[in-house]
Amino acid sequence: MTPPASPSVDVLALGNAIVDVLSHVDDAVIDGLPVNKGGMTLIGAVEAQELYGTLGPGVECSGGSAANTVVGAAMLGVRTAFVGRVRDDQLGQVFTHDIRAAGVQFDTAPATDGPGTAACLVMVTPDAHRTMCTHLGASIELGPDDVDEALVRGSAVLYLEGYLWDPPGAREAMRRAIRIAKDEGRAVALSLSDPFAVDRHRADFLDLVDNDVDILFANEHELTSLYGIDDLDTAFNEVMPLVKVAACTRGEHGAVIVGDGETHVIPAEPAVQVVDTTGAGDLFAAGFLAGWTQGRNLHDCGRMGAVAAAEVISHLGARPEADLRALVTAKVPG
Amino acid sequence: MTPPASPSVDVLALGNAIVDVLSHVDDAVIDGLPVNKGGMTLIGAVEAQELYGTLGPGVECSGGSAANTVVGAAMLGVRTAFVGRVRDDQLGQVFTHDIRAAGVQFDTAPATDGPGTAACLVMVTPDAHRTMCTHLGASIELGPDDVDEALVRGSAVLYLEGYLWDPPGAREAMRRAIRIAKDEGRAVALSLSDPFAVDRHRADFLDLVDNDVDILFANEHELTSLYGIDDLDTAFNEVMPLVKVAACTRGEHGAVIVGDGETHVIPAEPAVQVVDTTGAGDLFAAGFLAGWTQGRNLHDCGRMGAVAAAEVISHLGARPEADLRALVTAKVPG
Repeated sequence: MTPPASPSVDVLALGNAIVDVLSHVDDAVIDGLPVNKGGMTLIGAVEAQELYGTLGPGVECSGGSAANTVVGAAMLGVRTAFVGRVRDDQLGQVFTHDIRAAGVQFDTAPATDGPGTAACLVMVTPDAHRTMCTHLGASIELGPDDVDEALVRGSAVLYLEGYLWDPPGAREAMRRAIRIAKDEGRAVALSLSDPFAVDRHRADFLDLVDNDVDILFANEHELTSLYGIDDLDTAFNEVMPLVKVAACTRGEHGAVIVGDGETHVIPAEPAVQVVDTTGAGDLFAAGFLAGWTQGRNLHDCGRMGAVAAAEVISHLGARPEADLRALVTAKVPG
Repeated sequence: MTPPASPSVDVLALGNAIVDVLSHVDDAVIDGLPVNKGGMTLIGAVEAQELYGTLGPGVECSGGSAANTVVGAAMLGVRTAFVGRVRDDQLGQVFTHDIRAAGVQFDTAPATDGPGTAACLVMVTPDAHRTMCTHLGASIELGPDDVDEALVRGSAVLYLEGYLWDPPGAREAMRRAIRIAKDEGRAVALSLSDPFAVDRHRADFLDLVDNDVDILFANEHELTSLYGIDDLDTAFNEVMPLVKVAACTRGEHGAVIVGDGETHVIPAEPAVQVVDTTGAGDLFAAGFLAGWTQGRNLHDCGRMGAVAAAEVISHLGARPEADLRALVTAKVPG
């Protein structure tokens, strides 16, 4: 096997292409819904319409977990690309415009029929936590043929979101991308996304972590859910030998990064104000991967993740508004 | 003529039904466009697509000048209704959801073919000022048949935005609504909207102010533009005898209200932070009309306008995010 060519893309992400509809709700609204507070629940088109009808005025922003991550990484100077399916409708145009405007290469052909672009109803409670209901829409039309082999071979890191394991075609797209990336000697990164997604796909995720994943992103709930246990230390001990790096985010308690035989405890970056935690994990991964592809040490990678996460929780929406690069340069000098 | 029945609606607005696409730009972007900074420029569908392609990532919020006003008034406990045309597309659904969720009665049938729901590209410069490019889209499909005679007769105030004078069918809708309102003895309020809109329709606006308008809203640039002069005092002297109340907003200098033979100078309400001035005039009108329909004195009406305007400039987007009623109750006790 010839050694892999120098990559032309630093981070290639596969993910659900979603537009978020954010609105403020009281806790009583969440309590009255068949959802898990702080989690993501999949809903159908009719349910989405009904729920939307009960919510107050909203704001629409491009979202999608892995898409948020590559947008953040692109803002930090990383060469990024995204694969995901929108419909050729207005929300699809919004998603496409925003991700390209952020500097991310995005060439997946939109669906020309079938369900509309995926939408996520993001309900933000007064504690700034978000509870999400997602209608996957056109996202489920993604399939293995949408994975450009040359693009995967030319990308230093293949980044996958656990949410993408729900649509069967997208799952096959991820499996194909993983095979290509491993064959080329590229790094595979996975975000576990959500404890309930882990619950739905535990066997597959365990198999992925065991055989394919080099960099694992998870929060404490996802990591313990992966092993069906309550104790975070035990979960860490299980996962450590299987991956090169594991990054576990812990909300206001910061993050723990394990890799190269070392453990790094990263404090949370103080946020000016915590308005909406949507995208916190996605932006942690963005900052971390920016550092990783730029050759920074693991501690700095974690700090970059913490700074990016602190920015995105300071306002409504899961895409950074401030100059992320200037923030990181100031707070994590190289 | 029998005296008018007790109104079932306090404020009925006719306006363009628009979804705003807000993005941050440098002044150099505005300088490079054939637009007036701080103003509203009408653009076609192709121009809108081209301009959108050059802008950075955006956030979508429901907008439309008169629509923002009735949403703000509804949040202050006023019974409101809106007439305006969207298309039966995703942005039309967003507009319809948001205005109804705010408590505004909105029953205008959406267009089922033709151009999409109107969109306004709002470019916010670092000084927090906004420059707008509007593609009127389905808004131009509004016509006199969309004006529900019983609704106009049953509304205490008919509120009109000057922007609506651009689409010819909408202009006829406004003329019809004015005739019905005057016939019923209702108050007619007009916002001049934009100095360039005034420039396009000066003769019509002068005629309206002379014959039909009871409550006039304008900023200093619009009021001087109406009379083609530079001096605000002279413009005030011209307009005073023609209307019952004239409210002139002056940005950070507050507002001047003339009516009942008195002049009230209203200081600007200090804003915590000025992020985006989009909707400042619309929300001033909202607060003012809430006070007016609730029987408050002119000074309090002006103060309520100032408080509502201060809220909307403290964040991105032209619809209030805070509890406007609590703010006004605290700052302008009755």
